[in-house]
Amino acid sequence: MSAEPIQVAASSADRAARAALSAVTEPGDERIALLVRHTGAEATWRTILGGDDTLDRSRVLRRRAEHIDGAEVLERAEALGIRYLCPGEPGWPAPLDDMAATLDYADKVPPPLGLWLSGDGDLAALAESAVAMVGSRACSRYGERVASDLATDLALAGRTVVSGAAYGIDAAAHRGALGVGGQTIAVLACGVDVPYPRMHAQLLERIAADGLILSEVPPGSGPMRAWFLARNRIIAALSAGTVVVEAAPRSGALSTASWTQKLSRETLVVPGPITSELSAGCHKLVRDGAGMLVTGVADVLEAIGRLGDHTPPDPERDSRPIDDLLPAHTMVRECMHAGALETVAALALRTGLPDRSVATVLRELAAAGWVTREDGGWRLGSTISPLETRT
Amino acid sequence: MSAEPIQVAASSADRAARAALSAVTEPGDERIALLVRHTGAEATWRTILGGDDTLDRSRVLRRRAEHIDGAEVLERAEALGIRYLCPGEPGWPAPLDDMAATLDYADKVPPPLGLWLSGDGDLAALAESAVAMVGSRACSRYGERVASDLATDLALAGRTVVSGAAYGIDAAAHRGALGVGGQTIAVLACGVDVPYPRMHAQLLERIAADGLILSEVPPGSGPMRAWFLARNRIIAALSAGTVVVEAAPRSGALSTASWTQKLSRETLVVPGPITSELSAGCHKLVRDGAGMLVTGVADVLEAIGRLGDHTPPDPERDSRPIDDLLPAHTMVRECMHAGALETVAALALRTGLPDRSVATVLRELAAAGWVTREDGGWRLGSTISPLETRT
Repeated sequence: MSAEPIQVAASSADRAARAALSAVTEPGDERIALLVRHTGAEATWRTILGGDDTLDRSRVLRRRAEHIDGAEVLERAEALGIRYLCPGEPGWPAPLDDMAATLDYADKVPPPLGLWLSGDGDLAALAESAVAMVGSRACSRYGERVASDLATDLALAGRTVVSGAAYGIDAAAHRGALGVGGQTIAVLACGVDVPYPRMHAQLLERIAADGLILSEVPPGSGPMRAWFLARNRIIAALSAGTVVVEAAPRSGALSTASWTQKLSRETLVVPGPITSELSAGCHKLVRDGAGMLVTGVADVLEAIGRLGDHTPPDPERDSRPIDDLLPAHTMVRECMHAGALETVAALALRTGLPDRSVATVLRELAAAGWVTREDGGWRLGSTISPLETRT
Repeated sequence: MSAEPIQVAASSADRAARAALSAVTEPGDERIALLVRHTGAEATWRTILGGDDTLDRSRVLRRRAEHIDGAEVLERAEALGIRYLCPGEPGWPAPLDDMAATLDYADKVPPPLGLWLSGDGDLAALAESAVAMVGSRACSRYGERVASDLATDLALAGRTVVSGAAYGIDAAAHRGALGVGGQTIAVLACGVDVPYPRMHAQLLERIAADGLILSEVPPGSGPMRAWFLARNRIIAALSAGTVVVEAAPRSGALSTASWTQKLSRETLVVPGPITSELSAGCHKLVRDGAGMLVTGVADVLEAIGRLGDHTPPDPERDSRPIDDLLPAHTMVRECMHAGALETVAALALRTGLPDRSVATVLRELAAAGWVTREDGGWRLGSTISPLETRT
């Protein structure tokens, strides 16, 4: 075994080996991750086929591997419109490379062999602004409302909301982002083409249409209990910070928080009533110093640092082209009449968005130089608009 | 002005000067506190009578002082059954001396000239185990319930609950302690004989009967707006920690928290829903690192350190005599039949206390060696009871 990590090449043989490995090994297997790192995916695959007994369950792996052809797995996925993205390939999100770095330390967060993607979104671009939101499946109405509102605010602030498409907080997070045309990513513990939970088939379709669904297990795989915990490390790794909204003690959301810590990312915690067991895990994170209390989008953005493109516009730079705006921003902007002084209420009526969303969008548009705030309302363009000075 | 602090003597002239000063100066006046410290109370009184214009509002003070006779103020109070306790006198609580120490620093917490007391309680003894609880007047039902439950649990743990007898959280705190026969102290911004707020006349009577009411302004004084903020520093100083239950931003409870910090005591914060403005001040304290999040009595006791007499009994020491027990403990103990295996439910029925209070009392009694826990219930005495070995 070479001591030097082998540089990952995006060769088709390497891709096929990774696809094959993803079909027979367990997500997040440390020994496989180390073997791939030191000998490469193809050599690891040959090791498994040879029945190397230094590997756990080597016979099981070997028996499984004998029936698998990586190239075929890739072809079947492609036929379903599912992409396979490998480390180092164009579009691979840089934040995930932090996982590989942990293999040198005791607290390992093994990187995925590759990611299966459903949806047309650009994962690297989406991950640049990603914030994860996780929490209880059996959440309260309070938790659901908070998750949905916070996801909406994050989406309006240009953030990609990452979650696990489970019942409760996960679903509220995805829906909050989708509701204002925001970007959202679902990381699944099953194949990206497997609608799990079944009740979320439609939600998953919307996520794939507007954002991305991803998984490290190949298409067609049903979810396994242990895979949910492994899946959580990808949610944590993709995001600058993970917001925990309602988590009972010993809940899955706390496992995500623990991955978040291992990856030196922010764990952000929404408090709740101390009379609610659903907030007990959240409060424990704060008490243990493992998480930072947040009460709204401003706290979250402050904790993870604002995006460069959401700072006030730089007059030396070109203004942002209209097609760079988020759907909600475009909608509000297009509903404003040139020269008219518009109110939040009127725009809410015209766009169908809630008042508070319109207000947030207007503030964002103002910060980017699209609109100006005046006494009694908002006006399209500004006296010295970056657009006007150039057109 | 002498540079050396003058040792306070509990002479009757000193007492009279302090009583007189408390009648004409504002509670918490830094300059008066410094003057008393450096020249003594009598000299400070003479300075005021002389119209020393280094003092703020010296003419107003002088005019007021001309009509005041400290000995007379003391006599009138005594006739009403109100004691006046001065620094250094027997029964003066040691923790309050931390206030005098702050006069050397920028963040001053001026000590009171003395304290007017209503009720027979031993202030020094009560203060040894004091925990303050403050919060919003216009609290929510959640806040009221939490304050009451937490005060009950603190009282059952042998703690004196200190608060300000205001509407909302304050009242819930006092009532929670009184409900289980616990000790409670009300610190008022008016005279201890002035029922303010009026609706709390009966509550104040109960507090005086079972605990103590105290104030730094003389009997008969109505409350002044600014005095509430000054009063809060005494609540903070008397207690090892202050629990903040619901506080809107810029609420009075936050002023208590700020005194608490200046006195290097624990600020303990109960979180709540982020959708409630009443918890926003609490969350800000945690976010700013100014307060520690607590979710129950265990967190509070851990933060401020447990009382020595609530640790498991020391076999070398005599067991606690029965009349040292709190009323609720005595009640539960007296309702237990010798030799019988008792259940929480049966004892709740016999004592009229809520189940959870009985359960807590039983745990306390067990820790002190009065009862033992067995399969299916609790039994009076223990196999090697400290009582039995000595009688």
